[in-house]
Amino acid sequence: MELFERWESNVRGYARTYPTVFKSASNARQTDENGKSYIDFFAGAGVLNFGHNNPKMKEAIIDFIQSDGIPHSLDTMTTTKRDFMQAFVDTILKPRGWDYRMQFTGPTGTNAVEAAMKLARRVTGRNRIIAFTNGFHGMTLGSLAATANAYFRNAAGVPLHYVDRLPFGHPLEGMEETYQDASSGYEAPAAILIEPIQAEGGVNVADEAWLKEIRQFAKDRGALFIIDDIQAGCGRTGSYFSFDGMDLDPDIITLAKGIGGFGTPLAMNLNKPEFDKHWSPGEHTGTFRGQGISFVAGNVAMDYFKDDSFMKEVRAKGDLMRTHLQKMAGPGMEVRGKGMMQGLDTKDGALAKKIVAECFRTGLLVGGCGSEGRVIKLIPPLTIPEDDLKQGLGLLEKAVQSVMEPA
Amino acid sequence: MELFERWESNVRGYARTYPTVFKSASNARQTDENGKSYIDFFAGAGVLNFGHNNPKMKEAIIDFIQSDGIPHSLDTMTTTKRDFMQAFVDTILKPRGWDYRMQFTGPTGTNAVEAAMKLARRVTGRNRIIAFTNGFHGMTLGSLAATANAYFRNAAGVPLHYVDRLPFGHPLEGMEETYQDASSGYEAPAAILIEPIQAEGGVNVADEAWLKEIRQFAKDRGALFIIDDIQAGCGRTGSYFSFDGMDLDPDIITLAKGIGGFGTPLAMNLNKPEFDKHWSPGEHTGTFRGQGISFVAGNVAMDYFKDDSFMKEVRAKGDLMRTHLQKMAGPGMEVRGKGMMQGLDTKDGALAKKIVAECFRTGLLVGGCGSEGRVIKLIPPLTIPEDDLKQGLGLLEKAVQSVMEPA
Amino acid sequence: MELFERWESNVRGYARTYPTVFKSASNARQTDENGKSYIDFFAGAGVLNFGHNNPKMKEAIIDFIQSDGIPHSLDTMTTTKRDFMQAFVDTILKPRGWDYRMQFTGPTGTNAVEAAMKLARRVTGRNRIIAFTNGFHGMTLGSLAATANAYFRNAAGVPLHYVDRLPFGHPLEGMEETYQDASSGYEAPAAILIEPIQAEGGVNVADEAWLKEIRQFAKDRGALFIIDDIQAGCGRTGSYFSFDGMDLDPDIITLAKGIGGFGTPLAMNLNKPEFDKHWSPGEHTGTFRGQGISFVAGNVAMDYFKDDSFMKEVRAKGDLMRTHLQKMAGPGMEVRGKGMMQGLDTKDGALAKKIVAECFRTGLLVGGCGSEGRVIKLIPPLTIPEDDLKQGLGLLEKAVQSVMEPA
Amino acid sequence: MELFERWESNVRGYARTYPTVFKSASNARQTDENGKSYIDFFAGAGVLNFGHNNPKMKEAIIDFIQSDGIPHSLDTMTTTKRDFMQAFVDTILKPRGWDYRMQFTGPTGTNAVEAAMKLARRVTGRNRIIAFTNGFHGMTLGSLAATANAYFRNAAGVPLHYVDRLPFGHPLEGMEETYQDASSGYEAPAAILIEPIQAEGGVNVADEAWLKEIRQFAKDRGALFIIDDIQAGCGRTGSYFSFDGMDLDPDIITLAKGIGGFGTPLAMNLNKPEFDKHWSPGEHTGTFRGQGISFVAGNVAMDYFKDDSFMKEVRAKGDLMRTHLQKMAGPGMEVRGKGMMQGLDTKDGALAKKIVAECFRTGLLVGGCGSEGRVIKLIPPLTIPEDDLKQGLGLLEKAVQSVMEPA
Repeated sequence: MELFERWESNVRGYARTYPTVFKSASNARQTDENGKSYIDFFAGAGVLNFGHNNPKMKEAIIDFIQSDGIPHSLDTMTTTKRDFMQAFVDTILKPRGWDYRMQFTGPTGTNAVEAAMKLARRVTGRNRIIAFTNGFHGMTLGSLAATANAYFRNAAGVPLHYVDRLPFGHPLEGMEETYQDASSGYEAPAAILIEPIQAEGGVNVADEAWLKEIRQFAKDRGALFIIDDIQAGCGRTGSYFSFDGMDLDPDIITLAKGIGGFGTPLAMNLNKPEFDKHWSPGEHTGTFRGQGISFVAGNVAMDYFKDDSFMKEVRAKGDLMRTHLQKMAGPGMEVRGKGMMQGLDTKDGALAKKIVAECFRTGLLVGGCGSEGRVIKLIPPLTIPEDDLKQGLGLLEKAVQSVMEPA
Repeated sequence: MELFERWESNVRGYARTYPTVFKSASNARQTDENGKSYIDFFAGAGVLNFGHNNPKMKEAIIDFIQSDGIPHSLDTMTTTKRDFMQAFVDTILKPRGWDYRMQFTGPTGTNAVEAAMKLARRVTGRNRIIAFTNGFHGMTLGSLAATANAYFRNAAGVPLHYVDRLPFGHPLEGMEETYQDASSGYEAPAAILIEPIQAEGGVNVADEAWLKEIRQFAKDRGALFIIDDIQAGCGRTGSYFSFDGMDLDPDIITLAKGIGGFGTPLAMNLNKPEFDKHWSPGEHTGTFRGQGISFVAGNVAMDYFKDDSFMKEVRAKGDLMRTHLQKMAGPGMEVRGKGMMQGLDTKDGALAKKIVAECFRTGLLVGGCGSEGRVIKLIPPLTIPEDDLKQGLGLLEKAVQSVMEPA
Repeated sequence: MELFERWESNVRGYARTYPTVFKSASNARQTDENGKSYIDFFAGAGVLNFGHNNPKMKEAIIDFIQSDGIPHSLDTMTTTKRDFMQAFVDTILKPRGWDYRMQFTGPTGTNAVEAAMKLARRVTGRNRIIAFTNGFHGMTLGSLAATANAYFRNAAGVPLHYVDRLPFGHPLEGMEETYQDASSGYEAPAAILIEPIQAEGGVNVADEAWLKEIRQFAKDRGALFIIDDIQAGCGRTGSYFSFDGMDLDPDIITLAKGIGGFGTPLAMNLNKPEFDKHWSPGEHTGTFRGQGISFVAGNVAMDYFKDDSFMKEVRAKGDLMRTHLQKMAGPGMEVRGKGMMQGLDTKDGALAKKIVAECFRTGLLVGGCGSEGRVIKLIPPLTIPEDDLKQGLGLLEKAVQSVMEPA
Repeated sequence: MELFERWESNVRGYARTYPTVFKSASNARQTDENGKSYIDFFAGAGVLNFGHNNPKMKEAIIDFIQSDGIPHSLDTMTTTKRDFMQAFVDTILKPRGWDYRMQFTGPTGTNAVEAAMKLARRVTGRNRIIAFTNGFHGMTLGSLAATANAYFRNAAGVPLHYVDRLPFGHPLEGMEETYQDASSGYEAPAAILIEPIQAEGGVNVADEAWLKEIRQFAKDRGALFIIDDIQAGCGRTGSYFSFDGMDLDPDIITLAKGIGGFGTPLAMNLNKPEFDKHWSPGEHTGTFRGQGISFVAGNVAMDYFKDDSFMKEVRAKGDLMRTHLQKMAGPGMEVRGKGMMQGLDTKDGALAKKIVAECFRTGLLVGGCGSEGRVIKLIPPLTIPEDDLKQGLGLLEKAVQSVMEPA
């Protein structure tokens, strides 16, 4: 650990939350160099939906590398990329009857969001994006303007422009008229950018009726409706998209994190064709747009969505998590979530921090989110064995108890 | 190819320049699905310094995967990351007597630049960054503000702020006094952000004296001096950094592209300790900061820099490239470059486009850069066999000839 | 009129609403060059509270000019300015027990608002100002950012920054908590800028309870509370300030329009001493800050506020206006206002335009305001004889009738 | 003076430079309340070109007031305004064969500049304005962005946007090519905004050849060429405009200060018809656009320009000033200027401040300008009697001597 303290930047964060050096990982377990095993309820911030070192993916990746497949291709065409796209079309788009163009942006969530914001601005000729309180969309200046948290915003060192903010989950109450009135001072937005479930913001789940209201509001204003499903998508909530079945008809969907399957970077926006055509070739680029390993593993991931059995399992595990959380929740605490993204809002940042530390001590990796990190967020790999899941929940319960009632 | 036309975003660019579907690649050759082999003078936009599917890296990566190494770790500590950092310290930093903190930002160049700009603004409490004409620093709103090209800038859909621009390579001529004068209207900058060799901007090589003048200018203004060595670094120019030996003493160095070795994403900033300490933990984050495969391959890449033999070879190949280019350059054309980044400035965007297309037809991948893409940029893998290099240069020469004197 | 069409800018506006050439004016009447007399319910957009060519002011100004008083003094000290300041202190500030510093900004309302915004930003070190829907604060870029109307905003040609907007008159409903939460994305404001009665915005009268809520909100956020009383102040609503008696304790009050008495420009901010001291000498300047004629006439104006008799008269006339308006209001129309600023909201911009035109034809000057100009605003000189007032109201009633029931 | 210290804002500036209370003024003399007479070489910051209380203007204004002329008319048409416009057309525009539309903005220089910037942005659809080092254009946020001085800029409390800066008086040296190159990062400007003679900036006189180069540069870029002649115009330099005879063909000319003649506010832009037509009615407004007293006095001022005799006199007095200044200039000092705007650059802000104070003590009003106020600027009324001029120059000479060689 000395090497990290001596040579790595002071900006490192999780290295402080989990003060050990990890060596290997398999499905829902990580092992440190001292051989201690940790149950992983964090999954690399929601990336590892299919577990660490998913065996089918490992096999496919090794085959790919051994056969000199193309690991890095910018946005040239490769057989590997084609296979991934075909699988995505067949597994995700066609069954929903959806028509989108796939845009592979730079391989990070923030890049996907920046690309979506650019496209919305180009299409509408407007510059303002409506985002929501407690939203999280990334760290580069464009997406950071949409991110709510002051700690991240202040790090910008410059004022952040062109984003207006509405309260997440609150009825619009007359906002329609206000936006309609050219004398109101509210400028028509280029887009509304929303997470149906705010992950970093504190596991806040928007209800369907409100999402529909917002979607209609966007339509009425001539604004694009952009769903950021970067953390809640890819099966996390018990369906491929977190908003499946709500008929929200998004104009752009941003995906990253889980889309590459194995933990290697990939990001993909789904743009409606009528908007996508506003892109000129190469207007938004990025070196690492074409990642062979991510295409290979992402293709394997599609197998999980060929029928509903995996999602059914996820929903069942989600119910189990929820039940346990409600049982362990102390007075004043609140349980929120959907599928296998569940949060325990302790309403107390300092307390939550202690719980996270105690979990780490006893062999469970969890993270805090929301204001002051007061919400314990549970996002284990979707493939976690039931035993590990229960064992992890048990460790969490004990940690909550020990922190609430110090001996 | 139909699948790409039907389903991929209109934004795709290189897919149009190289209209074929690639299947495999090895060192400096890519093969398409019809079995046609191409010599690669583009190297994934300068990423693949060590060739496609570098055999040592393949082996190390496969070992890593088979042993359940940790592919994705955010900024937690892993043995794999430690090994990479140790190798970088031993191979690159210590021999130069340099002390920097390594910051692993989101794994793309644009993210590295955004992080560097943030840090400079925090350290100085100022907001303006000086960047240069024809500079290229990325596509997200913060770095895009520093990028010069209007095609990219216009895609932002919003005005870009907080960057002032000076002409690349021009003497400062009194700018010092102007910046000194509080009544001049020039605001003291937070940083000067510069590529010693502008790659995308047209293979423009700054001379050492001018770079020193700029460095001093930054120091005199209390501004950080940030070198963007994302494309020109990692051995590309015949030394590890493109500015080695110039005593420029940068405050921040941004690295990406070649640092991950294999074509998988990684980005790393080197921050002087006295500035790095201004970061609070987790202020600049990003999901894909810790990439195991990139650490493993990046570690293998360090082997190339244990002594000067590889760099010597690169310089020799660079000379060979330069000689050939000068021979084939038509009237009015100009050859520029350093090491194995060489450019043939045709001074004519349409002509350059034809040359690129003709090369592709005959089995050579090259790309255009600079204003209107008029500069043919040659950045083959540093490991390219001399035969391939010569053969590629021969194909280029023929393409130049055939385009200049159409039969 | 040809000269104006040939040589004056296309930007001219009121010249189109009132297509005649005026020659003279006295109290509440203007006469055009053809000798037609108009009753003036517009008063130079609320400037001429004491009538055109107020006789006492005429006399004082002529004396001043004949004695070579100083018409233009920047911010040097003059006897004339001192007399005005003394009268303002004695008549307005002391009776209220208020302590403010008087800042004479450039002599226009927009300049007063810009100065207030600057001071609030300096004091707090923050940059955002909260302004309200349908607010009007001026046309220069700083104040225009706070102005709501899209017609004016669009003329800027650049995006307008650093202003957030809340709905005028709406309860805050949880905004306190939202602003408190550092993760909400709402940035703490430098100031809240509000007109207790929005004049240009459509004669919208805020109720006292809401104003107190907003005032408290500002205090809780550490933000300055700025009241823009430029059009509603100086006696217009039946007390010197439009918010007298509400105990709002503003940190800055901006005054212009009526403060100079005669229609010559003057603007004055009242800054609380603890905030005013943040100004360094000469930081906000402007050539025409010291206007002798305005000081002289403004001093005469103070006589109207030595006791309550004039304000009593204003309130009585206001009641008379209100009664008449309510009588003439068609179905769906609404009467709003306070003292001698009364509005008839026709809810129909086209209709209102016709009424204004018909009034002009029959000898009454009124103007529209609010969204699409649908509100007929009545702001006659406070000194208007009761006969003229009744006659004018009669003309308006006929115009409303004739437009609503075209023969 | 106590009243000012007790009640006036800390922002007051000239009140500190001239610590006395003035009571009356006539032509080039101001008298304080103790009866001390001062020769005025400052003329209200260049407003009082025709002297304090110009007798013909006094007479005309008193007549106007006594006949109930219209002092305040917004942008309605009045006989008084028509007379002024006619005189301006006949005296200034027609003899030059010029066709411009007159736009009466809010009555201050800053407002005139803001209006010009808006118009240029609307016409071109671009947002950036090029302004120059040491330029001064006003204090409201739009014009302040173009103003160079850091003391004023810092008071904004927000970053200032959309203005790029070039060094005043420096050859463009390749800037044309740079701006031409779409990859350079220089955005095409909406306008170039320039003072042919920078007054506040330090009496910097641009030479004709350079001004022509800049004018051509604007034309080649499709940018409007805006001349700010607010301080240097209205006869100050020996011709009506400071750039008369240079064939610069400005697209917009901004005028204020001297245009109203008597020291009462007025501002007027001259817009080329082809650009002026881009204004929609009432897009840029302002309460005090129509000032009767200023129109009356401004009309009288036109008499001075019916033939060249007055300008000849101004040029002769300017020569006299220059000769004296050159004589009194100490080693290293520099004399700059044109006509009756002359500056003595002492190159030392502290020294200049002492000279200004010593002049005040001995009965001469002068002001400092330029960096740190190191340039003594002489801008007496153009009507100053030769005796007063010589006497004032004598006082200045003594002050310079006494400060340089302290007894």
